[in-house]
Amino acid sequence: MNTNKPVSLSLNVRGLGQSATLAIKDRCRALVQEGQTVCDFGLGQSPFPVPTVVVEALKLAASEKEYLPVKGLPALREAVAEFHRLKDHTDAHPDRVIVGPGSKELMFLLQIVYYGEILIPTPCWVSYIPKARIIGRRISLVPTSYEDHWKITPEGLLKTIEMVNDHLRPRLLVLNYPSNPSGLTYTADELAEIAEVARRFQVVVLSDEIYGQLHHRGEHVSIARFYPEGTILSSGLSKWCGAGGWRLGTFVFPPDLDWLCDAMAAVASETYTSVSAPIQHAAVHAFRGGVEIERYLWHARRILHALGRRCTRTLSEAGIRVHAPEGGFYLFLDFSPFREALARQGIGSGIALCNRLLNDTGTAILPGSVFGRSREELTARLAYVDFEGARALAASENVPLDQDLPPDFPDRWCEKVIAGKQQIASWLSTMTGDEVA
Amino acid sequence: MNTNKPVSLSLNVRGLGQSATLAIKDRCRALVQEGQTVCDFGLGQSPFPVPTVVVEALKLAASEKEYLPVKGLPALREAVAEFHRLKDHTDAHPDRVIVGPGSKELMFLLQIVYYGEILIPTPCWVSYIPKARIIGRRISLVPTSYEDHWKITPEGLLKTIEMVNDHLRPRLLVLNYPSNPSGLTYTADELAEIAEVARRFQVVVLSDEIYGQLHHRGEHVSIARFYPEGTILSSGLSKWCGAGGWRLGTFVFPPDLDWLCDAMAAVASETYTSVSAPIQHAAVHAFRGGVEIERYLWHARRILHALGRRCTRTLSEAGIRVHAPEGGFYLFLDFSPFREALARQGIGSGIALCNRLLNDTGTAILPGSVFGRSREELTARLAYVDFEGARALAASENVPLDQDLPPDFPDRWCEKVIAGKQQIASWLSTMTGDEVA
Repeated sequence: MNTNKPVSLSLNVRGLGQSATLAIKDRCRALVQEGQTVCDFGLGQSPFPVPTVVVEALKLAASEKEYLPVKGLPALREAVAEFHRLKDHTDAHPDRVIVGPGSKELMFLLQIVYYGEILIPTPCWVSYIPKARIIGRRISLVPTSYEDHWKITPEGLLKTIEMVNDHLRPRLLVLNYPSNPSGLTYTADELAEIAEVARRFQVVVLSDEIYGQLHHRGEHVSIARFYPEGTILSSGLSKWCGAGGWRLGTFVFPPDLDWLCDAMAAVASETYTSVSAPIQHAAVHAFRGGVEIERYLWHARRILHALGRRCTRTLSEAGIRVHAPEGGFYLFLDFSPFREALARQGIGSGIALCNRLLNDTGTAILPGSVFGRSREELTARLAYVDFEGARALAASENVPLDQDLPPDFPDRWCEKVIAGKQQIASWLSTMTGDEVA
Repeated sequence: MNTNKPVSLSLNVRGLGQSATLAIKDRCRALVQEGQTVCDFGLGQSPFPVPTVVVEALKLAASEKEYLPVKGLPALREAVAEFHRLKDHTDAHPDRVIVGPGSKELMFLLQIVYYGEILIPTPCWVSYIPKARIIGRRISLVPTSYEDHWKITPEGLLKTIEMVNDHLRPRLLVLNYPSNPSGLTYTADELAEIAEVARRFQVVVLSDEIYGQLHHRGEHVSIARFYPEGTILSSGLSKWCGAGGWRLGTFVFPPDLDWLCDAMAAVASETYTSVSAPIQHAAVHAFRGGVEIERYLWHARRILHALGRRCTRTLSEAGIRVHAPEGGFYLFLDFSPFREALARQGIGSGIALCNRLLNDTGTAILPGSVFGRSREELTARLAYVDFEGARALAASENVPLDQDLPPDFPDRWCEKVIAGKQQIASWLSTMTGDEVA
C-alpha cells in the first residue's frame, strides 16, 4: 500500500496503547527472557488453579459446539442467579442475567448502549477510562484519598452530582469492591449511605464485585441489598475461580433496568455472539458451587489474608502509606512521605518510580496514573500474586480451616512475594538514605 | 427505579433487535416446544461435529487458565500463519495475526478503529450493517444481481467509488466468498480484476473467507494473492471446523496495515482481553491440520456439494431463481417470477413470504432484507444445514473419496433438508396455483 495514503484511525483510538496491566506482563516476560529475575506484581491474575471439579466439567463439555443463546446457556444463567441469591441475598432472576467473554467486555457493551455520564471513583481499575474514551462517552472522575481508604463518601458523591445543574442527568456510577487497586472494601453501612444518594438521583450503579468471593473473611456485602432497583451486579470466573484466561463474566440486572440488558444482548449478538460453549457448560459447575469449591475459596482467602497482612506490615514499616487489604490481592502504595527524597533521585512521578524500581530490582508494580490518579502522584498498585497457588493451597490444606496459618507460611510458600516486598523496602531505603532508615 | 426517568439508550442502538440469524433460532426453538415440526434453514451453523483430534486437544488444555497475549497464543498465531501460507499461498506472518472471540467481534473492532467509509456488496452477511450502525460509521451498499451471480463486478465497484468526488477517501471493502448468503464465489480472474480497482484507489479489502475451506471442490482462492498489500484475511473455526459455538476467529494483516492490527489489539485489550485459553490451545491443532482433518473436510465438502445441487434442482424446477452453490451451505432464492401471484395472496415482501412459509409449513428461511436487500424484494436465504452431520459423515466414509456419493445419499442421510426443500416447492405451488404447476 502506497505510503502517501494516510493512516485512517478513529481519533478515539489514536495513541491508545495496550492495557497497562497486560503490557506490564509482556515487559516482565521480556526481562525474564533476557535472564533477569523478575518479581511480577503487575498483572492481577489469580495465582490459584481452576478448581478440579470445574476443569473436569470442561473436559466433559469439550465437544459442545453449538452457538449458545446470546444471553447465555439457560442452565448457566440459572446457576448465576442462584449463586447471587445465595451469596448476596439478592433476588437475581435468570432472565436478567447476561453472560459475556469477561466482565470487561460486558462493561464495554454497557458503555456502548447506555447514554449518560459515567462516574468513576479513583483509583479505579485500569480499563474503565480507556473504554469510555474509545466509545466517546463523557466521564467524571471522583477522586478519593488515602485517609478515606480510597473509597468514595456519600458526601463526595453528592458533591459530584450537584456540581452540575442537571440533577436527573442519566448517570452510571462504577463501584468496585473489594477494590482493584486498593484491596479495600465498603462496609454495609457505607453501601447503604451511597445507595441512598444513588436512589435520590436515580443513578444506575454498576457494582463490580468480581473480587466479592475473595473477601478475606468471606463477608462480602453487595450494594444490591440496599439499592436493588438500580444496581447491575457484575461478577465472573476470573478471580474467585482462578479462571481469568477462560474469559467468562456475568451481569445481573434488576427488573427496572431490563431495557439495558436487552440492548446489551442486541449489541452482543452483533459482536461476540455468545460465550464459548464448552466454557459456559463448565461454568455451570463453578457457579453451582459445592463443598470442594467452598473449601478452595476458604483456603485461598486465608492465604491472601496472611500474605496481604505481611506485605502491608513490611511496607508500612518502610514508611510507605498503605492500608491492610480486606479482599482480593492488591495493595495501593502511597510513597508521598518520600516526595522530596525521591525528587532528588530524579523521581517525580509514579511512572518514574515504577520504571526505576523495575530497572533497579526487577520488581514490577504499576503507577497510580494507570488507575486514574494524577501523573505527579507517587502511588502504585502491588498485586501480590507471584507465587505458586496450587502449592500454597496444598500446604494450606494441612492446617485446619478454623486455625490461622503459621506465621512463617508466607515465607515458605509465597517466598517470591516476600522477597519482592523486601526488595521494595530496601530499594526505598537506598533511594532515600537515612531519612527512612 | 422511578418510571419518570427516561430510558437512556444511545441512539445508535435504540430499536436494534437481536441478530436476525440468532433470532430465527430462538423462534424455531419456541415452535418446537409448541410441538410443531420445524425445518430450520435459518441459522447458518455447520451441521458437522468438531473433528475428534480437536476435541481431544481441548480436553488436554482444560486446565489452562492464564490470560493469553492479546493478539493470541504465539503457537496459535504461528499455526494460523502457516495455515494461510499453505492453503492460500499468502506470506502471512504470525506477528500480524490477531485472534478474537469470533471473526464477528474482530470485524466490530476493525470498524471501531478504522476511520473510513465501509463498502458492502449486497446481499451480504447479516451482521456487517448493524455493526457499522452501532459504531456510527458511514456505509455504502453495493447492490449485485441474480444475473451477476450476486457478485460485484470491477465496473460496479469503480462506479461506486467514482460516484463521490473524493477518490482517495479511506475505504474498506468487505468481500465475503464463498458467500453467505449465496453460496457462490469469485473466480481467480474476477478477484484479480477487483484487486486492480482496489489497488488503484487504495481501498482496504476485508476478505471474509470463513467459508474458504468449505469450497465444494476444495479450490478456494484468496484475493490476498492478487492484492497482498491491501488485504486483511479473515477466517476462523466456526465453519470449516464445525466449532461455531467455540468462538474463535482470526485476522491476518499485511505489513502495510500493521497500524490497523496494533490499534485493534489496543481496543481488544480493553474489551475481550484475549480469547479463552483452553480454546486457543485446542485451535492450534485445528489450524495445524493433518490427515484426519483433511479427510473430514473432503467428506464435508462432498456432502454439502451433493445436497446443495439437489436442493437447487428442486427449487429451480419449482420456478425459483437460484444458482447452484459452489461453497458453504447456503442458497439465495429469488421468488420474483411469482411476484404477481404472491401479491394476490397478500405477500409483497421477503419478510411476509418467510413468515407465511414458516407459519404454513414450519420451514424457516430468512428474508433478503436481513442481508441488506430491499424490503420489497422477494428473496430469501436458505441454510441447508438441518441434518445430523456426524451421521452423514460416517455414511460418506463408506464411499471412497474419489467417487461421487450415490444419488440417494441426501434422501437417506439429509432427509429433513430434502423434506424441507420439497415443502417450499409444494407451498409455492399452492400459493401460486396453476401458474407454476
